[in-house]
Amino acid sequence: MAAPLIALVTDFGTADTYVGVMKAVILSLAPEARLVDLTHEVRAHDIREGAFKLYSASPYFPANTIFLAVVDPGVGSARKGLIARAGEWTLVGPDNGLFTYFWLHFPDAEAFELGSIDYRLPVVSNTFHGRDIFAPAAAWAARAVPLHRFGERIERPVTIGSLTPHKSGNHIEGVVIHVDRFGNMVSNLCARWMQREGIEPNTGWYIRVGSKKIRRVARTYADAEPDVPVALWGSSGFLEISIREKNASSILGATTGTVIHLHLL
Amino acid sequence: MAAPLIALVTDFGTADTYVGVMKAVILSLAPEARLVDLTHEVRAHDIREGAFKLYSASPYFPANTIFLAVVDPGVGSARKGLIARAGEWTLVGPDNGLFTYFWLHFPDAEAFELGSIDYRLPVVSNTFHGRDIFAPAAAWAARAVPLHRFGERIERPVTIGSLTPHKSGNHIEGVVIHVDRFGNMVSNLCARWMQREGIEPNTGWYIRVGSKKIRRVARTYADAEPDVPVALWGSSGFLEISIREKNASSILGATTGTVIHLHLL
Amino acid sequence: MAAPLIALVTDFGTADTYVGVMKAVILSLAPEARLVDLTHEVRAHDIREGAFKLYSASPYFPANTIFLAVVDPGVGSARKGLIARAGEWTLVGPDNGLFTYFWLHFPDAEAFELGSIDYRLPVVSNTFHGRDIFAPAAAWAARAVPLHRFGERIERPVTIGSLTPHKSGNHIEGVVIHVDRFGNMVSNLCARWMQREGIEPNTGWYIRVGSKKIRRVARTYADAEPDVPVALWGSSGFLEISIREKNASSILGATTGTVIHLHLL
Repeated sequence: MAAPLIALVTDFGTADTYVGVMKAVILSLAPEARLVDLTHEVRAHDIREGAFKLYSASPYFPANTIFLAVVDPGVGSARKGLIARAGEWTLVGPDNGLFTYFWLHFPDAEAFELGSIDYRLPVVSNTFHGRDIFAPAAAWAARAVPLHRFGERIERPVTIGSLTPHKSGNHIEGVVIHVDRFGNMVSNLCARWMQREGIEPNTGWYIRVGSKKIRRVARTYADAEPDVPVALWGSSGFLEISIREKNASSILGATTGTVIHLHLL
Repeated sequence: MAAPLIALVTDFGTADTYVGVMKAVILSLAPEARLVDLTHEVRAHDIREGAFKLYSASPYFPANTIFLAVVDPGVGSARKGLIARAGEWTLVGPDNGLFTYFWLHFPDAEAFELGSIDYRLPVVSNTFHGRDIFAPAAAWAARAVPLHRFGERIERPVTIGSLTPHKSGNHIEGVVIHVDRFGNMVSNLCARWMQREGIEPNTGWYIRVGSKKIRRVARTYADAEPDVPVALWGSSGFLEISIREKNASSILGATTGTVIHLHLL
Repeated sequence: MAAPLIALVTDFGTADTYVGVMKAVILSLAPEARLVDLTHEVRAHDIREGAFKLYSASPYFPANTIFLAVVDPGVGSARKGLIARAGEWTLVGPDNGLFTYFWLHFPDAEAFELGSIDYRLPVVSNTFHGRDIFAPAAAWAARAVPLHRFGERIERPVTIGSLTPHKSGNHIEGVVIHVDRFGNMVSNLCARWMQREGIEPNTGWYIRVGSKKIRRVARTYADAEPDVPVALWGSSGFLEISIREKNASSILGATTGTVIHLHLL
């Protein structure tokens, strides 16, 4: 059997040694664990972006992957730490909404507070729970400690309401949740949500960003016309706004948090 | 025997989760594979830079390394995907010139189209072949699937003509193919090409960048005089322009794509 | 027994392939080695920042970790390369002060020059000892070559004097040695040094940065008042200056190298 796989996602960046230190802690406790970086470039303190990046990537990981996620503006405050089982995955991180999409998608998920001092570092700082609480918990989970041993059941882990679009008549209000390095803008308009609302994926509506109307749904980045912004279903099932070989975000003056309007015809 | 080694080079950056997802796909199919990041900071869509970075790094990898390279502006268009054997290495990526240096250096290389649906993800998107086609192909290669099983032989994989310098009388025109983070400018003037043209490596010529003449070939970065640009044979056998402890690129106003002139005396 | 662990810290960045090539060299010689990136974003040529990042992270690594550290402005000059045993760790890199904190903390450390050609690449360049000398040395150390086999004993490895604070009466002069990505400024005022000087950790003094006085020592980032700079003991035992959810470095106009004054009351 392959060694346990731990995937890390944080807003720590890679300039500091935070991530390296978390890996050091994991490998001290679970030397056989395999580590994969999902990304450490979530915008600082942006729980919504972290939630999107983690959830949209998760389906590609093998069963029993442990996701160690730390975007944690409330470190040192009263917010809880949690470990959970959701579908085939184990989740470890702060209980601040970072796992919202998992709670929506896996109603049977079970979450437990990271309360037991047996599965922490001996000294817990107020500033770096990634190292002192979350990395050890992920390592102990990799060593097959049952989840209920970590602490009390959390009945209602925190969810963030604003992660889904809002519909009002023929107008849907979404938001840019992520801009990739090519300037493609990923919105929270997801194929599954559109389907549930009975909206056709490729016709019967247009997108508006500021005063700019976007009418065309392209099949691929390459199939768009030059300089014309298009909508496009990204590889994770979220609607993107893109301009062929250009930076759509800077051209449209839109970024993470910018509202996107979808008008039904 | 050590587990198969897969080295990744892309223009995806590490802010997005693209690379993490490719690794997830690989480890789902080939859990024992070892993964090494070569770089993910190739300039977006810059096939020439990707070709240089991959080729110049390859000699240091152990035999049987699988190079998974994705710089792919034409994703979703008609360009092919390929898997190839070149020397001791296996190459996986788009057939768009990214492997030009390998075709030049290993005339016996054999390339096959990634045509078989048996070695792809079940659903192939139009926007992310790195995940859906190339990562699975690398994983299956790590599991020793013979190359001809992936698809048809590609007789003439794509090469990019502009990757070598041009000589006309006593004037050679090269180009900056890479600027490193210290501002050192790496040109496409390579020691092997100079030798073939009968040009001495360290004497008998000067370099011109814009109006600036560079006459000295330094042995090391440290052995150059302060504030005087020097030429220098970089560790991969390509000629570099460098200024001691300064950023040569910004001082000389030259960057990737800037023409470099070599004048024979 | 788990495979040997090699932790890498450099100023090479990840845009170039330098780090990938060092890993290729290591895995060619020691295929079973496990590799962990501590960081490759040390500021170019900043030995002091490298020294801090390496030392402050080291306690979290398992015993027998090999630290491969390359911040090496003098590459190609007469500076030596070294391999050392300090406490439970093995250190590999240039002898330029990068390991200062280890020499202070482990007076029994033993260092040896990387002199033997048996443990280098066959060809040694003048510009990239990370690849040609240090990576092979780390790999051979992972294969249990005794340290004295690498070369002559180095009696006095290089230390950097400016890495500790200076006290003069009631005034202590420290310096910012690191700014993290959130803008928190880490100083060289460490808890151990304060204790040795008989200074209380949380009372009896104030900090001055430029004309700004900082009187409060916060327990956590979250427990500080908005917009008021606070001092705070960071997770590595160094005093930090921080502003809640703001970038203290840009607000205070202070960065790496800025002097910090501690005035005893």
